[in-house]
Amino acid sequence: MPDKVSIADKLGSFSDHWAPRIIARYNGNEVRIAKVDGEFIWHQHDSTDELFLIVEGELDMEFRDRTVTLRPGELIVVPKGTEHRPCARRGEVAMMIIDLEGTPNTGDELTATKAVEI
Amino acid sequence: MPDKVSIADKLGSFSDHWAPRIIARYNGNEVRIAKVDGEFIWHQHDSTDELFLIVEGELDMEFRDRTVTLRPGELIVVPKGTEHRPCARRGEVAMMIIDLEGTPNTGDELTATKAVEI
Repeated sequence: MPDKVSIADKLGSFSDHWAPRIIARYNGNEVRIAKVDGEFIWHQHDSTDELFLIVEGELDMEFRDRTVTLRPGELIVVPKGTEHRPCARRGEVAMMIIDLEGTPNTGDELTATKAVEI
Repeated sequence: MPDKVSIADKLGSFSDHWAPRIIARYNGNEVRIAKVDGEFIWHQHDSTDELFLIVEGELDMEFRDRTVTLRPGELIVVPKGTEHRPCARRGEVAMMIIDLEGTPNTGDELTATKAVEI
Protein backbone atom coordinates (compact mmCIF):
# COMPACT_ATOMS: atom_id res chain seq x y z
CA MET A 1 0.00 0.00 0.00
CA PRO A 2 1.22 3.50 -0.75
CA ASP A 3 2.82 5.57 1.96
CA LYS A 4 3.64 9.25 1.97
CA VAL A 5 7.08 10.73 1.40
CA SER A 6 8.37 13.94 2.95
CA ILE A 7 10.65 15.71 0.49
CA ALA A 8 12.35 17.66 3.34
CA ASP A 9 13.02 14.49 5.35
CA LYS A 10 14.50 12.74 2.32
CA LEU A 11 16.64 15.79 1.47
CA GLY A 12 17.95 15.74 5.03
CA SER A 13 19.25 12.20 4.60
CA PHE A 14 22.16 12.98 2.23
CA SER A 15 24.50 15.81 1.35
CA ASP A 16 26.40 14.91 -1.82
CA HIS A 17 25.84 16.84 -5.03
CA TRP A 18 24.60 15.73 -8.46
CA ALA A 19 23.69 12.30 -7.07
CA PRO A 20 19.97 11.71 -7.59
CA ARG A 21 17.87 9.71 -5.13
CA ILE A 22 14.61 8.00 -6.05
CA ILE A 23 11.81 8.78 -3.58
CA ALA A 24 8.76 7.47 -5.49
CA ARG A 25 7.66 5.86 -8.74
CA TYR A 26 4.82 6.97 -11.00
CA ASN A 27 3.65 5.31 -14.25
CA GLY A 28 7.11 4.00 -15.13
CA ASN A 29 8.83 7.22 -14.15
CA GLU A 30 11.11 7.94 -11.22
CA VAL A 31 10.46 10.81 -8.83
CA ARG A 32 13.94 11.86 -7.79
CA ILE A 33 15.47 14.50 -5.56
CA ALA A 34 18.96 15.95 -5.83
CA LYS A 35 21.18 18.59 -4.28
CA VAL A 36 23.35 20.44 -6.75
CA ASP A 37 26.03 23.10 -6.62
CA GLY A 38 27.99 24.67 -9.49
CA GLU A 39 27.68 23.87 -13.19
CA PHE A 40 26.54 20.58 -14.66
CA ILE A 41 27.37 19.47 -18.20
CA TRP A 42 25.45 20.13 -21.40
CA HIS A 43 23.33 17.09 -22.21
CA GLN A 44 19.98 15.88 -23.48
CA HIS A 45 17.60 12.97 -22.94
CA ASP A 46 16.35 11.50 -26.19
CA SER A 47 13.70 9.23 -24.68
CA THR A 48 12.12 11.32 -21.93
CA ASP A 49 10.91 14.75 -20.96
CA GLU A 50 12.43 15.89 -17.67
CA LEU A 51 10.51 17.78 -15.01
CA PHE A 52 12.34 19.97 -12.48
CA LEU A 53 10.65 21.49 -9.42
CA ILE A 54 12.84 23.70 -7.26
CA VAL A 55 12.63 23.17 -3.50
CA GLU A 56 15.47 25.37 -2.21
CA GLY A 57 17.87 27.84 -3.83
CA GLU A 58 18.00 29.29 -7.31
CA LEU A 59 18.72 27.23 -10.43
CA ASP A 60 19.79 28.57 -13.81
CA MET A 61 18.46 26.19 -16.45
CA GLU A 62 20.54 26.98 -19.51
CA PHE A 63 19.33 26.27 -23.02
CA ARG A 64 21.43 26.96 -26.10
CA ASP A 65 19.53 30.19 -26.78
CA ARG A 66 18.59 31.44 -23.31
CA THR A 67 18.64 30.85 -19.56
CA VAL A 68 15.60 30.36 -17.31
CA THR A 69 16.13 31.09 -13.60
CA LEU A 70 13.99 28.95 -11.31
CA ARG A 71 13.17 29.60 -7.66
CA PRO A 72 11.40 27.49 -5.00
CA GLY A 73 7.90 26.48 -6.09
CA GLU A 74 8.73 26.94 -9.77
CA LEU A 75 8.90 24.08 -12.26
CA ILE A 76 9.97 23.52 -15.83
CA VAL A 77 9.59 20.57 -18.18
CA VAL A 78 12.56 20.13 -20.53
CA PRO A 79 11.20 18.34 -23.61
CA LYS A 80 12.94 15.15 -24.77
CA GLY A 81 15.85 15.84 -27.10
CA THR A 82 16.42 19.40 -25.83
CA GLU A 83 19.96 20.31 -24.85
CA HIS A 84 20.13 21.83 -21.38
CA ARG A 85 22.56 22.53 -18.57
CA PRO A 86 21.37 23.00 -14.98
CA CYS A 87 23.64 25.36 -13.03
CA ALA A 88 23.57 26.38 -9.36
CA ARG A 89 25.82 29.44 -9.36
CA ARG A 90 24.55 31.19 -6.23
CA GLY A 91 24.71 28.42 -3.64
CA GLU A 92 23.26 24.95 -3.25
CA VAL A 93 19.96 24.06 -4.90
CA ALA A 94 17.63 21.26 -3.82
CA MET A 95 15.12 20.00 -6.36
CA MET A 96 12.66 17.32 -7.32
CA ILE A 97 13.11 15.77 -10.78
CA ILE A 98 10.92 13.34 -12.69
CA ASP A 99 12.50 11.14 -15.36
CA LEU A 100 11.59 7.98 -17.21
CA GLU A 101 12.79 4.96 -15.18
CA GLY A 102 16.53 4.35 -15.57
CA THR A 103 17.34 7.63 -17.34
CA PRO A 104 21.03 8.53 -16.85
CA ASN A 105 21.31 12.01 -15.29
CA THR A 106 23.94 13.07 -17.82
CA GLY A 107 22.06 11.59 -20.78
CA ASP A 108 24.81 8.97 -21.08
CA GLU A 109 25.21 5.70 -19.13
CA LEU A 110 29.00 6.06 -19.16
CA THR A 111 29.15 9.37 -17.31
CA ALA A 112 25.97 9.13 -15.23
CA THR A 113 25.64 8.98 -11.47
CA LYS A 114 23.07 6.24 -11.03
CA ALA A 115 19.89 7.25 -9.20
CA VAL A 116 19.47 5.14 -6.06
CA GLU A 117 16.34 4.44 -4.07
CA ILE A 118 16.12 5.93 -0.58
CA MET B 1 10.78 26.28 -26.05
CA PRO B 2 9.98 25.43 -22.43
CA ASP B 3 9.17 28.17 -19.96
CA LYS B 4 8.90 27.99 -16.22
CA VAL B 5 5.68 27.80 -14.22
CA SER B 6 5.16 29.25 -10.76
CA ILE B 7 2.79 27.02 -8.79
CA ALA B 8 1.89 29.91 -6.44
CA ASP B 9 1.08 32.26 -9.33
CA LYS B 10 -1.11 29.64 -11.00
CA LEU B 11 -2.88 28.87 -7.69
CA GLY B 12 -3.58 32.59 -7.31
CA SER B 13 -5.46 32.66 -10.62
CA PHE B 14 -8.55 30.69 -9.54
CA SER B 15 -10.55 29.94 -6.40
CA ASP B 16 -13.06 27.17 -7.18
CA HIS B 17 -12.73 23.76 -5.57
CA TRP B 18 -12.26 20.28 -7.07
CA ALA B 19 -11.66 21.82 -10.52
CA PRO B 20 -8.19 20.79 -11.74
CA ARG B 21 -6.06 23.07 -13.90
CA ILE B 22 -3.27 21.81 -16.17
CA ILE B 23 -0.03 23.76 -15.69
CA ALA B 24 2.44 21.54 -17.59
CA ARG B 25 2.75 18.30 -19.55
CA TYR B 26 5.33 15.57 -19.05
CA ASN B 27 5.71 12.33 -21.06
CA GLY B 28 2.00 12.09 -21.87
CA ASN B 29 0.96 13.03 -18.35
CA GLU B 30 -0.70 16.22 -17.11
CA VAL B 31 0.75 18.23 -14.24
CA ARG B 32 -2.34 19.68 -12.57
CA ILE B 33 -3.08 21.87 -9.60
CA ALA B 34 -6.31 22.01 -7.61
CA LYS B 35 -7.82 23.65 -4.57
CA VAL B 36 -10.06 21.38 -2.54
CA ASP B 37 -12.24 21.68 0.53
CA GLY B 38 -14.38 19.02 2.20
CA GLU B 39 -14.80 15.40 1.14
CA PHE B 40 -14.42 14.04 -2.37
CA ILE B 41 -15.96 10.77 -3.56
CA TRP B 42 -14.52 7.30 -3.40
CA HIS B 43 -13.03 6.44 -6.78
CA GLN B 44 -10.13 4.78 -8.59
CA HIS B 45 -8.17 5.21 -11.82
CA ASP B 46 -7.68 1.94 -13.66
CA SER B 47 -5.20 3.21 -16.24
CA THR B 48 -2.92 5.51 -14.26
CA ASP B 49 -1.05 6.01 -11.02
CA GLU B 50 -1.83 9.38 -9.45
CA LEU B 51 0.75 11.55 -7.74
CA PHE B 52 -0.32 14.13 -5.13
CA LEU B 53 2.05 16.76 -3.73
CA ILE B 54 0.59 19.03 -1.06
CA VAL B 55 1.35 22.75 -1.39
CA GLU B 56 -0.89 24.25 1.32
CA GLY B 57 -3.13 22.81 4.02
CA GLU B 58 -3.59 19.27 5.27
CA LEU B 59 -5.11 16.49 3.17
CA ASP B 60 -6.49 13.19 4.45
CA MET B 61 -5.99 10.59 1.74
CA GLU B 62 -8.38 7.82 2.67
CA PHE B 63 -7.88 4.25 1.55
CA ARG B 64 -10.33 1.46 2.38
CA ASP B 65 -8.08 0.24 5.22
CA ARG B 66 -6.44 3.42 6.52
CA THR B 67 -5.97 7.17 6.16
CA VAL B 68 -2.71 8.97 5.33
CA THR B 69 -2.53 12.64 6.36
CA LEU B 70 -0.39 14.75 4.05
CA ARG B 71 1.10 18.18 4.78
CA PRO B 72 2.94 20.71 2.58
CA GLY B 73 6.03 19.21 0.95
CA GLU B 74 4.70 15.66 1.31
CA LEU B 75 3.70 13.47 -1.63
CA ILE B 76 2.00 10.17 -2.21
CA VAL B 77 1.55 8.04 -5.33
CA VAL B 78 -1.80 6.22 -5.42
CA PRO B 79 -1.24 3.13 -7.60
CA LYS B 80 -3.58 2.51 -10.52
CA GLY B 81 -6.69 0.61 -9.53
CA THR B 82 -6.51 1.64 -5.87
CA GLU B 83 -9.68 3.06 -4.33
CA HIS B 84 -9.06 6.36 -2.59
CA ARG B 85 -10.87 9.43 -1.34
CA PRO B 86 -9.06 12.75 -0.85
CA CYS B 87 -10.61 14.82 1.96
CA ALA B 88 -9.80 18.33 3.19
CA ARG B 89 -11.53 18.39 6.57
CA ARG B 90 -9.52 21.15 8.26
CA GLY B 91 -9.67 23.97 5.73
CA GLU B 92 -8.73 24.43 2.10
CA VAL B 93 -5.90 22.39 0.60
CA ALA B 94 -3.88 23.34 -2.48
CA MET B 95 -2.04 20.56 -4.27
CA MET B 96 -0.20 19.48 -7.39
CA ILE B 97 -1.42 16.27 -9.03
CA ILE B 98 0.06 14.27 -11.90
CA ASP B 99 -2.24 12.07 -13.98
CA LEU B 100 -2.12 10.39 -17.35
CA GLU B 101 -3.42 12.82 -20.01
CA GLY B 102 -7.21 13.04 -20.04
CA THR B 103 -7.81 11.15 -16.77
CA PRO B 104 -11.20 12.11 -15.27
CA ASN B 105 -10.70 13.38 -11.70
CA THR B 106 -13.53 11.20 -10.38
CA GLY B 107 -12.36 8.13 -12.32
CA ASP B 108 -15.50 8.47 -14.49
CA GLU B 109 -16.08 10.74 -17.51
CA LEU B 110 -19.72 11.25 -16.56
CA THR B 111 -19.06 12.81 -13.17
CA ALA B 112 -15.66 14.40 -13.78
CA THR B 113 -14.76 18.07 -13.75
CA LYS B 114 -12.59 18.35 -16.84
CA ALA B 115 -9.04 19.59 -16.24
CA VAL B 116 -8.44 22.79 -18.21
CA GLU B 117 -5.16 24.34 -19.27
CA ILE B 118 -4.16 27.64 -17.64
